Amino acid sequence: MIQITGGTVITMDPAYRVVQADVWIDESYIVHIGPWEKTADVVIQAQNQYVLPGLVQPHVHLCQTLFRGMGDDLDLLDWLKTRIWPLEAAHDFDSVHVSAQLGIAELLRSGTTTILDMETVSHTEGAFHALAQSGIRAIAGKCLMDEPHPLLYEPTESALKESLDLAAAWHGFDRGRIQYGLAPRFALSVTDDLWRLVAEEAGRRHLIVHTHVAESQREVQEILAHKGLLPMHHLHAMGLTRGRLMAAHGVWLTKDELTIVRDYQVGLVHCPSSNLKLASGVAPISTWQEQGISFGISADGAPCNNRLDGFEEMRLAALLQKPLFGAKSMLARTTLTQATFGGAKILGLDDRIGSIEVGKEADLIMVSQKGVHHQPMVYSDPYSQIVYQARSDDVSMTMVAGRVLYQDDRLLTLDEERVIGQAEKAIRRVADRANIL
Amino acid sequence: MIQITGGTVITMDPAYRVVQADVWIDESYIVHIGPWEKTADVVIQAQNQYVLPGLVQPHVHLCQTLFRGMGDDLDLLDWLKTRIWPLEAAHDFDSVHVSAQLGIAELLRSGTTTILDMETVSHTEGAFHALAQSGIRAIAGKCLMDEPHPLLYEPTESALKESLDLAAAWHGFDRGRIQYGLAPRFALSVTDDLWRLVAEEAGRRHLIVHTHVAESQREVQEILAHKGLLPMHHLHAMGLTRGRLMAAHGVWLTKDELTIVRDYQVGLVHCPSSNLKLASGVAPISTWQEQGISFGISADGAPCNNRLDGFEEMRLAALLQKPLFGAKSMLARTTLTQATFGGAKILGLDDRIGSIEVGKEADLIMVSQKGVHHQPMVYSDPYSQIVYQARSDDVSMTMVAGRVLYQDDRLLTLDEERVIGQAEKAIRRVADRANIL
Repeated sequence: MIQITGGTVITMDPAYRVVQADVWIDESYIVHIGPWEKTADVVIQAQNQYVLPGLVQPHVHLCQTLFRGMGDDLDLLDWLKTRIWPLEAAHDFDSVHVSAQLGIAELLRSGTTTILDMETVSHTEGAFHALAQSGIRAIAGKCLMDEPHPLLYEPTESALKESLDLAAAWHGFDRGRIQYGLAPRFALSVTDDLWRLVAEEAGRRHLIVHTHVAESQREVQEILAHKGLLPMHHLHAMGLTRGRLMAAHGVWLTKDELTIVRDYQVGLVHCPSSNLKLASGVAPISTWQEQGISFGISADGAPCNNRLDGFEEMRLAALLQKPLFGAKSMLARTTLTQATFGGAKILGLDDRIGSIEVGKEADLIMVSQKGVHHQPMVYSDPYSQIVYQARSDDVSMTMVAGRVLYQDDRLLTLDEERVIGQAEKAIRRVADRANIL
Repeated sequence: MIQITGGTVITMDPAYRVVQADVWIDESYIVHIGPWEKTADVVIQAQNQYVLPGLVQPHVHLCQTLFRGMGDDLDLLDWLKTRIWPLEAAHDFDSVHVSAQLGIAELLRSGTTTILDMETVSHTEGAFHALAQSGIRAIAGKCLMDEPHPLLYEPTESALKESLDLAAAWHGFDRGRIQYGLAPRFALSVTDDLWRLVAEEAGRRHLIVHTHVAESQREVQEILAHKGLLPMHHLHAMGLTRGRLMAAHGVWLTKDELTIVRDYQVGLVHCPSSNLKLASGVAPISTWQEQGISFGISADGAPCNNRLDGFEEMRLAALLQKPLFGAKSMLARTTLTQATFGGAKILGLDDRIGSIEVGKEADLIMVSQKGVHHQPMVYSDPYSQIVYQARSDDVSMTMVAGRVLYQDDRLLTLDEERVIGQAEKAIRRVADRANIL
């Protein structure tokens, strides 16, 4: 039994309770909140800390962590074609493995406990080994790309087969901590045959489908030219909206497409830094919110951000709406809800995680209030403090399923120095093969 | 003599040299860069660190640091009228003093070495004492507001007289480290009589004038209604463009007003977080850049941000331009230039600070490359790393005029715990008097 004592608990429960209370964890579950007569095996001191649900980032690419800083100042399609695809194509098992480890190290340090991850076409097994060993909660999948392409391409059949083999091996691992998600890249990389097969297999196996949609105007135009349909209309026509579809970005979705999103409960993922850096635009998440569309907030991959920092994304998500929709749009509490419970909900995990409530799994973080950037705190609102003031280095503890993975500047499941050393070797190897520099 | 050894020096000199070299500091000056046969009294180890000029933030309000988190979700004019002015009017000498100390603590920890600071109407002496004692470089001034207002207002004559008395007391203090800047708040708070007097006195005494201009559309409309002129046209008509004018924000300056800005070398200050949070908009700094307009980058005050973090502002300044002007707008190097040398230049301090060059004062910072969020570094560009990846907690040392003010998580001129304790007491006192909660 673990007792987290002395902290201020931002529960994110339906009543939005913020309480000065102990949180008790037995095995992987939250078993009690408040005073209790029991004795814990481990007591974690949380004085001057907020205790809150871990951040959920439902759109990352761990295989790209090695490419950090190697794709600056390019718009989406140029960035993909001249940097990301050649680099992804040059990956090997070990480089995918260490890229995932490096990304997970950054995510755990900055308070993210759950991710939806899109890997590349090959060597996805490397990422699953890293995810399994690290203790983070993840839904991951190999990227599906069967439209002929000189570098990154697979025949339809074998692409799907490898996905299903990976799903058979990893879906449900460690009592469901790891799941498989089918990951067709986006409309331009995937044939309609494969889209239809993905929809079918996802339905049969109850798997999430994870893709990109309406990220940039140029992409929307190319999809319209190639498929004769707007991106969400195309996914709808292919049958993807029958199951649980996660669509990243959605910056340029039309009103009509947003109706489909809402009616078929598609989960959107807002990636504010990435949308700015790749010159894509600003997604109208205030409108999504008003229309009852479910969405999460995420950092995307390292080379379009260049960090994987959920706190940075929350702050930006809130701030960016205000010039467009007024100072009262995307209030701090709403923003934190989307970054925790909202992300869990679109992933179908809201019965297990996303808030601090008895019976849920203990995916939670501690955030220090001690920094001068939080002072004075006398009249502070906790949500405002978390969204506008907190920095990811305020995170002092990260726990997934009752297991402490990061505490007091130390990662407990990853040898950080070793990972960094291996990452350096791996990116040299991958960049040499990609031959783009 | 101080020797900073083993670091990578991002000089920001005219050739943009980035060198692996030692920096030697004698008294307050940089006296040598590179190997030298001399022996230093103090050796600072900078392995795995960047050494770069300290950030210059040419628009802050230290007197508002106490109000952090007390003005969320309001647009500019409501924010001023319902929160900031009542709170400023309730300040006393001690609360102004500790508000400045708290702000300076945050600024030094996050690598800012020079500020242009606008205080409130009264008790500005409190801020000057804090500035003087802390070691930070600052141009500061009391806020001028002589348009009749129930809370924050002074007769024209006494407002100006107190400013000039403060200037006489503080301008040039500590060999010019502290300067006085006349600070008329903005068009709507200042009578035309006072604008003309300010222009005259600034010219006579060679003082900077620090004000706000074209921050929000509503403000521009009100200025047009009251003065019959657009904000910059009004300042021009009042004679302010004859001297060194610092105008914060400029989000809504028209093409015609920008011509005046360029022709009369007005210094603009971009405050990206503040402009988003108060729903003002996004300033077109790419256009400013193209037109040869000089500008700095700054955090504004704590209640409209809610941090004073120059790294956050740099990152945001770069990212926000890209959806508007393309992925290649506001490159990382350009952004860092504006946040260091650019700020120094508009303040007329570019002969003394803003780059690491022999003969300049030693205002510099060290930024650690060690965090996982910087890895792998094999193919990283240093400017990209500083602008897109670095966090303010990567700052490991802050030096102003050759004096170490912050090192290894410790402020050397401020007793942080005492400041935080006093800040809490002060904001209770001020909020009680303001009676707005």
